[in-house]
Amino acid sequence: MNTPLRLGIAGLGTVGIGVIKLVRQQAALIAARTGCDISISAISARSRSKDRSIPLTGYAWEDDPVALATRDDVDVFVELMGGTDGPAKAATEAAIAAGKHVVTANKAMLAIHGQELAEAAEAAEVSLRYEAAVAGGIPVVKALTEGLAGNEITRIVGVMNGSCNYILTRMENVGLTYDEVFAEADGLGYLEADPQLDVGGIDAAHKLAILSAIAFGTRVNFEGIELEGIERISIDDIRQAADMGYKIKLLGVAQKTGRGLEQRMMPCLVPDTSPLAQLQGGTNMVAIEGHAVEQIVLRGPGAGEGPTASAVMGDICDIARGVRLPVFGQPAISLEHSTPAKSVLPAPYYLRMTLHDKPGALAKIAAVLGQAGVSIDRMRQYGHADASAPVLIVTHTCTRSSVDQALDAMRGTGVLTTDPVVLRIEAV
Amino acid sequence: MNTPLRLGIAGLGTVGIGVIKLVRQQAALIAARTGCDISISAISARSRSKDRSIPLTGYAWEDDPVALATRDDVDVFVELMGGTDGPAKAATEAAIAAGKHVVTANKAMLAIHGQELAEAAEAAEVSLRYEAAVAGGIPVVKALTEGLAGNEITRIVGVMNGSCNYILTRMENVGLTYDEVFAEADGLGYLEADPQLDVGGIDAAHKLAILSAIAFGTRVNFEGIELEGIERISIDDIRQAADMGYKIKLLGVAQKTGRGLEQRMMPCLVPDTSPLAQLQGGTNMVAIEGHAVEQIVLRGPGAGEGPTASAVMGDICDIARGVRLPVFGQPAISLEHSTPAKSVLPAPYYLRMTLHDKPGALAKIAAVLGQAGVSIDRMRQYGHADASAPVLIVTHTCTRSSVDQALDAMRGTGVLTTDPVVLRIEAV
Repeated sequence: MNTPLRLGIAGLGTVGIGVIKLVRQQAALIAARTGCDISISAISARSRSKDRSIPLTGYAWEDDPVALATRDDVDVFVELMGGTDGPAKAATEAAIAAGKHVVTANKAMLAIHGQELAEAAEAAEVSLRYEAAVAGGIPVVKALTEGLAGNEITRIVGVMNGSCNYILTRMENVGLTYDEVFAEADGLGYLEADPQLDVGGIDAAHKLAILSAIAFGTRVNFEGIELEGIERISIDDIRQAADMGYKIKLLGVAQKTGRGLEQRMMPCLVPDTSPLAQLQGGTNMVAIEGHAVEQIVLRGPGAGEGPTASAVMGDICDIARGVRLPVFGQPAISLEHSTPAKSVLPAPYYLRMTLHDKPGALAKIAAVLGQAGVSIDRMRQYGHADASAPVLIVTHTCTRSSVDQALDAMRGTGVLTTDPVVLRIEAV
Repeated sequence: MNTPLRLGIAGLGTVGIGVIKLVRQQAALIAARTGCDISISAISARSRSKDRSIPLTGYAWEDDPVALATRDDVDVFVELMGGTDGPAKAATEAAIAAGKHVVTANKAMLAIHGQELAEAAEAAEVSLRYEAAVAGGIPVVKALTEGLAGNEITRIVGVMNGSCNYILTRMENVGLTYDEVFAEADGLGYLEADPQLDVGGIDAAHKLAILSAIAFGTRVNFEGIELEGIERISIDDIRQAADMGYKIKLLGVAQKTGRGLEQRMMPCLVPDTSPLAQLQGGTNMVAIEGHAVEQIVLRGPGAGEGPTASAVMGDICDIARGVRLPVFGQPAISLEHSTPAKSVLPAPYYLRMTLHDKPGALAKIAAVLGQAGVSIDRMRQYGHADASAPVLIVTHTCTRSSVDQALDAMRGTGVLTTDPVVLRIEAV
């Protein structure tokens, strides 16, 4: 047996409680696997008196997570509070400075402060691990950093926010509107305290930024992500996309281009036949493409007590086993600055608009598309009862900038009743 | 930079050449990721003169893999020769005895001799790694051993032989017979030198035995696997299964039961809606179920130069990074002997038979099923031109022993024209 490993856990929400349960229930199994007794020394949370359904009296209590992180009887600081800055960051920094390993599920903190935290951890020769920050129970950080380390990674594509996928698949399956499903999801506790983190695509973009850094050896660059949420997706989009053989997913894509690193998190159409199209509810899926491995697809629960605690425990077991790796797969000081390339890669686009029902309206739209060099693959005008005609266009492959140019010109024609919805069609 | 890591590669087939290409092409990337220059000192294969499409003059040549494995300028012995015993085993043992790490893609050797090799490697404090032995490019050994180390694993289910899946999906998609597709696959070089390893399910069972050991903390027990190949699957089975909403897959399942460890590798019916059902061609898929993580599904290429070399390089990178883990996830001497439990877990079954077209034939079949306690969910008799009537039965959930009892009784009725095909229906 190696020296016991003692945890200090800050944050006693679903995940924190899940980790405590795992440590207790699987003590013998984990000791057999790691050669190390793993125990909990101390815990911390905002409220000490809250009922958390399991007895917590055996652990020292700290009101201040910084005090927890630096305790002499803590070897690994487990940060499960969340938040980009504030106590989570302060306690993580304090833990590193005190020579403690850190395991965190905090995607926001890593997406914004990942570089400085990684440099600090590597200088202090401690581990900073975050499997639970990306795609819940799926060991995707490990697959990318370790299993595929021999590959030049060419692309990452994934559905990484279970709440958005729940909303989109629920709209699709039950025919409810975005607002109806949003209210339902919120009532079920599926959304973050600030739902904009979910439906605005921010949470998923945090995850994409982290995977990008590992994949491409670049500094985490959340600001470089082209970001769009699912709020404008209507039940009409879902129906009409289905009608043309597509499903709508909040899709993250990261890919190197000749003009820089393209990172996108936005609702896209994917073909019905894509494995991503079949993803239901809160499940996450990440496809990793490498020059040698071709494509690996990982699927699993994107959130929840058990799956997230499983990811946290995987990191703790690695630390117990003596595994020490650079935070983003290579030394943080060697990570390059990337140039963000926004929608450089061409694709077909889906455009939905409503036109004033007057002679020549459609001709004007077709004309401005042609002038911008956007060629039409399929167009449909739907029957309508009022004076505005719903029109759907699928373009041939073109650049986003030519689509934007056409949109500007369309707005000048006076035939649009509302601003068009534009969705990229991604072949995955 | 750490001390350089020097490889000795034995076996210069597709995978060996793939590894050499990776080491050369990705030298800078791999050095950045591992902090270590990885180089090749020496190589070995059966024929020195064979044209292998890339220049190999920079490396020392050894005719004898044992001599290669024990060279002073080799830190990691990379065993890509294959074969359960013979030179592969001798050289692996010699490498371990000489204090070298070993990376192998040899599932047969590990499935049969895994326990003794693991004990030897752990006693010598060297790594013995084998990601490429299971499911090609998919980092499934890593996911199971490390990422999911906090879980009590409850079940492993997977399609782990690309050649069999190629044959089955090709029969399904093109309507060719088993013999036609077998000949085609053999001509394309998709099958092992001894095709029985593929179509007999042996290769896939080797992989399942290895995953079982990691998952359940038990000694590798290939002999304990209930094994059946795909040779008896006819185009009629595929069509009739499809007609009832199923696809046929060579499916591996490992699961602990109250009566021991159940390990099965056999053709099964899976529902059309299962992600396993959608698996085409040579792709592999493994689902891992754990008490905390619920279910993780990993999909990727099951063979081929790039994917297999990627898996080998992942192991080499881990060794370069100083990662040292027990071979099967916990010390080999602590792995338990398992009691094989054969088809203890009940399931619905698919039975296909042809009956002499005489009054009362079907009644006799129905009667013996009833007497054996096997209840019929669906039965179909198909139209026929000759004197034998094809009959298809899907049972309710029952034990395999009751099905076998019914089969024995059926054989005594004199109404069967040939022995029935029996396939388990697996819910995954």
